[in-house]
Amino acid sequence: MTSTIAEALRFRPGATVAGLDTSATPGFDGAKADAAPVQAARSERLAELQEMLYASSKGADDHRSVLLVLQGMDAAGKGGIVKHVVGAVNPMGVRYTAFGKPTPEELEHDFLWRIRRALPPPGHIGVFDRSHYEDVLIVRVRNLVPPEVWGARYDEINAFERELVDSGTTLVKVAMFISLEEQKEQLLERLDDPTKYWKYNPGDVDERLLWPQYQEAYQAVLDRTSTDYAPWHVVPADRRWYSRLAITELLIDALEGLDLSYPAADFDVATERRRLLDS
Amino acid sequence: MTSTIAEALRFRPGATVAGLDTSATPGFDGAKADAAPVQAARSERLAELQEMLYASSKGADDHRSVLLVLQGMDAAGKGGIVKHVVGAVNPMGVRYTAFGKPTPEELEHDFLWRIRRALPPPGHIGVFDRSHYEDVLIVRVRNLVPPEVWGARYDEINAFERELVDSGTTLVKVAMFISLEEQKEQLLERLDDPTKYWKYNPGDVDERLLWPQYQEAYQAVLDRTSTDYAPWHVVPADRRWYSRLAITELLIDALEGLDLSYPAADFDVATERRRLLDS
Repeated sequence: MTSTIAEALRFRPGATVAGLDTSATPGFDGAKADAAPVQAARSERLAELQEMLYASSKGADDHRSVLLVLQGMDAAGKGGIVKHVVGAVNPMGVRYTAFGKPTPEELEHDFLWRIRRALPPPGHIGVFDRSHYEDVLIVRVRNLVPPEVWGARYDEINAFERELVDSGTTLVKVAMFISLEEQKEQLLERLDDPTKYWKYNPGDVDERLLWPQYQEAYQAVLDRTSTDYAPWHVVPADRRWYSRLAITELLIDALEGLDLSYPAADFDVATERRRLLDS
Repeated sequence: MTSTIAEALRFRPGATVAGLDTSATPGFDGAKADAAPVQAARSERLAELQEMLYASSKGADDHRSVLLVLQGMDAAGKGGIVKHVVGAVNPMGVRYTAFGKPTPEELEHDFLWRIRRALPPPGHIGVFDRSHYEDVLIVRVRNLVPPEVWGARYDEINAFERELVDSGTTLVKVAMFISLEEQKEQLLERLDDPTKYWKYNPGDVDERLLWPQYQEAYQAVLDRTSTDYAPWHVVPADRRWYSRLAITELLIDALEGLDLSYPAADFDVATERRRLLDS
């Protein structure tokens, strides 16, 4: 299961955003009802692995971490991934950060400054809800900096991610794609339900009008920053049950790749049992 | 339900740590099996309220937050509360911090320095796994600073918490108590299961030998820092199913006290629907 979905989603050079079927369910044959029990079982597996990652960092000298990078247009379902997929693991081992419009302080620094400050400590799963990729997405589409500045960032990002990987962080980069029509449905739902008004931002419609430009910017991200050490995964996200299962599988795949184990005792177990019984 | 448990747990002047029945289930009549469905329903309620707190902070000018302070001896079950109680809400709205032995940098600052840096942003539930209270618990028991230094901290803590409350943070202070015997059982379990070795620390037995001194230090905390604006709750924790339900109820009680609502739209809904349909 795992490797089927994970492999199916890995970005392949030449694949195009424009050619993606956003309602597909790569690597999974069934329908929504079939996915529910699989999701439950796999969420448990994910929670187990996360505990092992956390435990391992408490032992001798394991500084590894995992970083989930979530990108996608408004209403692509990033929030649902945080709630349902990340929500399945122990919050003790999660470091979540949402990257919105940069603050004045953040703008005074290099674009990676705020990113570095949010990196997961050893043993943790970091979750970036949007990320440094916004600096070559909205920033590119909206001309927020000159082209030579954002143009240089692809290489800068690759170098940065190389550094992260070398220091023990496994990146799970996920681009979630929905159709223009599905986005409309999702945004309309927010307008139809007063308990969802807070999720709606009139600026979302402005971004929506730039859809082709965003497609192009996403294509450049995939083409230029999907590396062997930090590949992108392209997740069709019209079906939310699928994107949740898919990203659960991507995390499991990354964690299983770490070949985790619980650390050995750094004390003598028999001695400690005696001390404890005598206490 | 809520108010029954929450009221029963509120520290009352004159109540003693030594006199506490750590296996009791104040405010709840049933047994473990009865608690399970209640826990499931109340976890959902907690998740709903947390979403409202988060949503409300995205509206105009609501800067409120909640801060859960968890204190208790080793193996009292703090970790289980994080996993099961905090784990039931959306990680997007949680800010978890564990306070261990202070780092050299932290020791260079006032004891509240690291605490202030970890306070929850508006709309968030902060979770302190141990807290500034360690500075009048282990620090007092172990004589890590002179008595006049830790002695002054009770008032300093009260002033600090007054400031937090005035700035919109609701404190939920929870002291979890297990019996000396129950602690032994719990620690033995960690020695009996190689996947739990990482949770065991030989120093826990040393602390255990100082149980009466810790009881005394906890008593001073309750007597001197349970205030109208930031009261302590005393949770018997031998029965883990009970302490989980109890702390769920304490959080619900705090959140319901905020009289939360989803923010109104700060845009014209009809206009936005038109813009969206036209896009």
